[in-house]
Amino acid sequence: MLSFTISGNYTDLYEITMGEVYFLENRKDHPASFDYFFRKIPNQGGYVVFAGLNELLQILEDLHFTAEDIAFLRKLNFHSSYIDYLENFKFRGSVYSVREGEIVFPDCPLLRVEGTQFETQLVETLLLNILNFESLIATKASRMRYVAGNRILSDFGLRRAHGPGGVLAARAAIVGGFDSTSNVYAAGLYGLEAAGTMAHSFVESYDSEIEAFRAFARSRPGQCIFLVDTYDTLQSGIPNAIIAAKEIEKQGYRAAGIRLDSGDLAYLAKAARKMLDEAGLSYMKIVASNKLDEWVIKSLLEQNAPIDIFGVGTRLVTGQPDAALDGVYKLSMAGDKPRLKLSENLEKVTLPGIKQVVRVIEKNGEFFGADAVILAGEEKASTIYHPFEPDKFFNIENFHQESLLQKVMENGKRLSAAPSLQDIAAYAQKRLALLPKEYKRFENPHIYKVGISKKLMDLKNNLRDQHKIVKK
Amino acid sequence: MLSFTISGNYTDLYEITMGEVYFLENRKDHPASFDYFFRKIPNQGGYVVFAGLNELLQILEDLHFTAEDIAFLRKLNFHSSYIDYLENFKFRGSVYSVREGEIVFPDCPLLRVEGTQFETQLVETLLLNILNFESLIATKASRMRYVAGNRILSDFGLRRAHGPGGVLAARAAIVGGFDSTSNVYAAGLYGLEAAGTMAHSFVESYDSEIEAFRAFARSRPGQCIFLVDTYDTLQSGIPNAIIAAKEIEKQGYRAAGIRLDSGDLAYLAKAARKMLDEAGLSYMKIVASNKLDEWVIKSLLEQNAPIDIFGVGTRLVTGQPDAALDGVYKLSMAGDKPRLKLSENLEKVTLPGIKQVVRVIEKNGEFFGADAVILAGEEKASTIYHPFEPDKFFNIENFHQESLLQKVMENGKRLSAAPSLQDIAAYAQKRLALLPKEYKRFENPHIYKVGISKKLMDLKNNLRDQHKIVKK
Repeated sequence: MLSFTISGNYTDLYEITMGEVYFLENRKDHPASFDYFFRKIPNQGGYVVFAGLNELLQILEDLHFTAEDIAFLRKLNFHSSYIDYLENFKFRGSVYSVREGEIVFPDCPLLRVEGTQFETQLVETLLLNILNFESLIATKASRMRYVAGNRILSDFGLRRAHGPGGVLAARAAIVGGFDSTSNVYAAGLYGLEAAGTMAHSFVESYDSEIEAFRAFARSRPGQCIFLVDTYDTLQSGIPNAIIAAKEIEKQGYRAAGIRLDSGDLAYLAKAARKMLDEAGLSYMKIVASNKLDEWVIKSLLEQNAPIDIFGVGTRLVTGQPDAALDGVYKLSMAGDKPRLKLSENLEKVTLPGIKQVVRVIEKNGEFFGADAVILAGEEKASTIYHPFEPDKFFNIENFHQESLLQKVMENGKRLSAAPSLQDIAAYAQKRLALLPKEYKRFENPHIYKVGISKKLMDLKNNLRDQHKIVKK
Repeated sequence: MLSFTISGNYTDLYEITMGEVYFLENRKDHPASFDYFFRKIPNQGGYVVFAGLNELLQILEDLHFTAEDIAFLRKLNFHSSYIDYLENFKFRGSVYSVREGEIVFPDCPLLRVEGTQFETQLVETLLLNILNFESLIATKASRMRYVAGNRILSDFGLRRAHGPGGVLAARAAIVGGFDSTSNVYAAGLYGLEAAGTMAHSFVESYDSEIEAFRAFARSRPGQCIFLVDTYDTLQSGIPNAIIAAKEIEKQGYRAAGIRLDSGDLAYLAKAARKMLDEAGLSYMKIVASNKLDEWVIKSLLEQNAPIDIFGVGTRLVTGQPDAALDGVYKLSMAGDKPRLKLSENLEKVTLPGIKQVVRVIEKNGEFFGADAVILAGEEKASTIYHPFEPDKFFNIENFHQESLLQKVMENGKRLSAAPSLQDIAAYAQKRLALLPKEYKRFENPHIYKVGISKKLMDLKNNLRDQHKIVKK
C-alpha cells in the first residue's frame, strides 16, 4: 500500500534551504510573524468559507521530520549540523486565526503564525496546501448548500479527486454544508456519515435488472436505492424498482429510493416521482447524480425537479473551473520590525505589522459588507481606507464591530480542543445566514469591502518610502 | 501529524455495499472483468499521457483492509461474517494495461482488471482516483514540455495542490516531461530531483536586499538563485544580484541565477539578461515563475524571452480549467458472459467482452492517427468502424499494427519490476515524438480516430438487442 504523511518534508525545498541559511547565520531563533490571506475569490463567487484550520493545528501540534525525511535530506547538499538540528525540530510557534467556518474575504489576514524565523518559514507550504484546498472546497460546497435548501447533499467525488486530496475534500464539503460522503476512508478518519447506492456494474453483473434489484434487496432490504438507468430508465429501471420495492414491502421493509445518473434529470425525476407515487411508493426518495454543480442543482430545482438527494462528484472535489484558492503566506514582522514586500502590481504590496481584523455589523446583526484591517494595538476602527486608493474611505465608528482573529495555538499547543466538524459546519451556516444575499448570488455578486486603518496605512507608506530611499 | 493510507477503505461505500451482496449471495468469487477508459480529453487537448500505472500496481500488490479500516466498518451496518471476510482480503486479480507513458485517446480500453467479482469491483474507486489524476497532470506537463523545448521545467505547485494530491502531481509531472520538483516529500518518495530558490520573505527578513543575498551566498555560494522582485526588479533586485554574484566570483564560485516572479516576464527577462551579460555574468540563468501554464510559456518563448528555467505551480498541479480526466471503469464480463451498459447517450454505451487495442502505424513509424479496439481473440484488425456511426469505416489491413495492452499483473503480483520514472518519462517522449504535430497543437487539435472491429460491433449490437427484447 501507499501512505502519505504530512511531516517536515511536506514542504518546498526552498523552505529548508532558507532554514539552513538562518541556521548557519544564527538567525533561526529570531522572532518572525507571517499572515495567511488570499487575493481573489475563486469561481466568481462573493465570499470564501475558511476551512482546514483544525486539521492544520492537528498537523502542527506534532510536526517533525520523520526518520525517512532525515534520511532523504542527508542525501542532499546540506550541512550535517543543520540536519542534526532538523532531526530534533518541533514546531513551537503560536497561531492566531479566524474561526474555521468563518465567511472571509480577499486581502484580510485570516491567520497569523508567530514564532522563530525558522519554524514560521518552514510551515508555509503545508499551511497553504491545507488551507487553500479545504477553503476552496468548503466554499464550493456552501454554494450547493445555498441552492439545495434542506435537501441532502452527498460527496461522490473520490474517483475524480486529486489522489488523496479527495479525503480532505470530503472533510471540507462537510464544513461547507454537505451531509455525507461516499468516501469510506474519509468517513472513518473524520467520523462522517458514509453514503452510497449501487453501480451500473452491479446491475449488469446479473442476467437481468430485476434479478440484480432483488439480490440487493435480499441483503439490505431497508436500505435499497436502486440505480435505474443501466438499460432504460422509464421502460425498465423504474418499473423493476417498483416491482422490487413492492416485494420487500410485503416483508415489512421500505425501499429507500432510486438513483438517476444520466439523461435529463429534471424530466426523469418528474416522471419517476409520478410512477413511484402511483405505485404507492411515495416514501421512496429520488437521488440524482451526473455532472452536478451549484448551477445545475439550481436549475433543476427551478424546474421543480422532485429530487431529494444530490450526489456530487467531480465539480465538488476539484473546485473547478479555478480549482485553486490563491492564498499566500507573507512575512509581516522579522526581528521585531514590521516588514513588507513591494510589487509592480499595487495589489501585491503586503500589509506590515501585527494586525487584527474587525468585521462591521449592522444593527440587525447582519454583516454590513466591510471588514477593517487594523494594527493589533488599535482598540477599534473608526475611518477605514481603501488599501490601494487612499481617497476612498469610510467611517465605521457607529457600527458594532467584531474582532475575528483569536489566539488558537501557543508554544505549539492548541489552546482548546478541536470543535466537532458538525459544530464547524453549523458555525459556517450561521455566519452565512448573516451575509446579505447579494454576496451569495452566482452572477456578479456584490463586492465585500476591505479597508485598512489610518495607522496601518501610515506604517505601510513609511516602510514603502524607506525601501524607495534605500534603492536610490 | 496526519497520514493518508491507500488501503481497502480508500473507496466509495457502494463498492463495499455491493461486495456484501456478492458475499451473501455466493457471487463474490464469480469471474469478472472491467475496463478503464476515458471519454473526453481534458483542457481541449489532442491526446492524453497515461500515468499512474506503476503507482497503482504498487498499491494493488499489498491492498488490504487495515485494522483501522475494519474497526470503522464494524460500526456500519454490515454482516459481521462479511467484515471477517474483508479482514483477510487480498487483491489477487490480473491486470492488462498499456504502458505507463503511452499516448492514449478517448474510448479505448487502456487497462483491464480481471479477477473475482468482489475484488474487481472493490478497486474501482482507487484505480480511478490514481489513474485519472496522474494522467491529467502528466498530460498537462507534457504540453508544457512540448513548448518549452529543452529548457528546464520544475514543479512548484505543492502550496496550491489539492492536499496530498500534490505528491502524486509531482510524480505525474515527471512522467509528462518535467525535470524536477520543489516538493521535498515527493522527491524523497519517488527519487526525484528537488529544486528551489528563495522566497520574498527571506529577502524581507533582512534589513536590506543585498544583506539577504550575501547571507544566502555565504551558506550556498555555488547554488545561489537570487529572487529579484521583492522591492524593484530592475532598480534594486538585479543590481544587488550582480553585486553578490561578483563577490562570490572572487571566492571562486559562480552564482546559479536569478528568479523573476512578477511583472512582465518577457520584458524583465530580456532586461535582466542584458544586465547580467554586461556584468560578465552570462553563466547566470534566468528562472521565471508566476501563473505559468503551457500558453504563457509558449507566448514567452515566442517573444524570445531568454528564460532558462520555468517554475510552474497552480496551473500544473490542478490541471485546470477542467481539473479532472473523466476516466471510468466499466464491467465488460461477468460470470464468463460479456456485459454492456446501455444509455440514452449513445457515447455512453460500453464495449462488452475481452478486448485488445491496436495502434495503426505509418510506414515512417509515426502514428497514423487511429486506434482499433478488437476482441482479444482477433489476430489483427482489418476494417474498423466508427463506434457509434457504423456507416463510417476504414481499412487498416495494409498498415503496421501494434498491440497496446499487455499483461502486467497476475494473481495480485506484478509480472516485472516497475520501470524507473526516468524510463517512463523517456517512453512518453518517444511516443509523443511519433504523434504528428497536428494532434499536439493547442488550438483545435486534430481528432485522433478510434474504431472497433466488425466482431466487436456485432457482439455489442447483439447484447444491445437482447436487452431491448428483455425490456419489452
